[in-house]
Amino acid sequence: MAYATARAAIGDSEFDRDTAVVARPGEPGTYDSELSAGWTIIRAVNGGYLLAVVGRALRAALPHPDPITITAHYLTASEPGPAVIRTETVRAGRTMSTGQASLFQRDEEGREVERIRVVAGYGDLAALPDDVRTSATPPSMPSYEDCVSSSDAPAGGPVTGSTAILDRLDLRLDLATAGWAVGAPSGAGDMRGWLGLADGRDHDAVSMLLAVDALPPTAFDLGLAGWVPTVELTVHLRCQPAPGPVRVALRTRNLAGGLLEEDAEVWDSKDRLVAQSRQLARAPRP
Amino acid sequence: MAYATARAAIGDSEFDRDTAVVARPGEPGTYDSELSAGWTIIRAVNGGYLLAVVGRALRAALPHPDPITITAHYLTASEPGPAVIRTETVRAGRTMSTGQASLFQRDEEGREVERIRVVAGYGDLAALPDDVRTSATPPSMPSYEDCVSSSDAPAGGPVTGSTAILDRLDLRLDLATAGWAVGAPSGAGDMRGWLGLADGRDHDAVSMLLAVDALPPTAFDLGLAGWVPTVELTVHLRCQPAPGPVRVALRTRNLAGGLLEEDAEVWDSKDRLVAQSRQLARAPRP
Repeated sequence: MAYATARAAIGDSEFDRDTAVVARPGEPGTYDSELSAGWTIIRAVNGGYLLAVVGRALRAALPHPDPITITAHYLTASEPGPAVIRTETVRAGRTMSTGQASLFQRDEEGREVERIRVVAGYGDLAALPDDVRTSATPPSMPSYEDCVSSSDAPAGGPVTGSTAILDRLDLRLDLATAGWAVGAPSGAGDMRGWLGLADGRDHDAVSMLLAVDALPPTAFDLGLAGWVPTVELTVHLRCQPAPGPVRVALRTRNLAGGLLEEDAEVWDSKDRLVAQSRQLARAPRP
Repeated sequence: MAYATARAAIGDSEFDRDTAVVARPGEPGTYDSELSAGWTIIRAVNGGYLLAVVGRALRAALPHPDPITITAHYLTASEPGPAVIRTETVRAGRTMSTGQASLFQRDEEGREVERIRVVAGYGDLAALPDDVRTSATPPSMPSYEDCVSSSDAPAGGPVTGSTAILDRLDLRLDLATAGWAVGAPSGAGDMRGWLGLADGRDHDAVSMLLAVDALPPTAFDLGLAGWVPTVELTVHLRCQPAPGPVRVALRTRNLAGGLLEEDAEVWDSKDRLVAQSRQLARAPRP
């Protein structure tokens, strides 16, 4: 069927519709959005999806299109439904501009509650010079075909609650980091997988903000189960992703004091390091 | 001489005096500071020193004492002289509070210009639980005695301009990453050294903000000379540093599009990973 095999285009896909922001007339820098229930996991809206929504608002507000470095502090748990993003242009430079944004939702009494606060430097990835001097190498992992889809996973495992986001992703995990799904985590603190979008939309700068936070948490590979709330997430975008699924490699090296870092690298089909990120998260109680 | 061998105490040292902030009467959350010329390098005030000044203001403003995760965007070049820091308490939680701060200086026309913008999550390192599950290992490097002090360095090298900060630091570089000083950089993008303060003050949470940005840039080890301006710097503090100099290991893996990341790890005398940081910086033109 042509319909089933059609690939959604960037700008006309589930992800684009669900991250859309609408400028509020008469309030410059303010954008309305509707957080979709389609990107929830366990009991919360995915933090990467949230960052993508705010990233769309900053893209609309700033003179440069791409988040080169973007940091989010997660303050309170977001819920599906209406949200407003208020942006501020901090500085507009020639090659980079700096912006700030907060996403708010209303509580039961109708008061605005801040969900996340973001500061970012935006630039134009397509305008960056071509020089590359890298010693980074792509993660060692099986091919897309030899990784396991979440639809292959047995029922159960450490996730209880919503898995809605899995229907929106084309996520295939490296079996070496998927043992937790059958009660045999490796203990290493790694998570690796191929990541596309379920409707075939290719990646762009905005979907990279989702990609760094879309895999199961490394805590699962450490043998911990439960919610791993992000305190802070910083993403650096280093080039435009080429078409096709990306490889995402997460690693946690230091769990201490009830907190852990989760480092992500995203590599595209041309073997380029597209994004680097680090988040600080609260470790699940053992 | 007792004087020469006396060690400065935390709270009564050059670093403490030069990062002091004074609450402005009648303006809650606003602090005055005097940026010292003693922490300049090449032609700018060191970015880690600046972050420590802002970190002091946030410590004064927030209900928790220690920066657990702190991000700074560097907007314009700071200069020695008066500065004002305006803070905002974004959220005050039980175990962590979130704050924002901007440091301003006045330009020639007397207008306030924003130098850096900071968002941070503060907590209490001493109150964190004791659990540690780490696979991180300290950097492989020579002992303090077998590293080279900046006072041993030949004249010349890639630094032209102020080196005032070197007089405030007890910095001893791993010879393997100091070849640039004699025109023979390794090309690896590494920089490692032992770091104390020249007056013997031990480290604390605030001086960690200096430590992650106090070594020569990894760009020197890549064979590049010149100024490497920080765009954004994020520091995670994972525990209180034990007394004595710390080991700082910097690494750059990906220089692309005129930008490079510089990752830092700081290890204390008890072999604990005290801080992790990453900055995005502009690469010097080759």
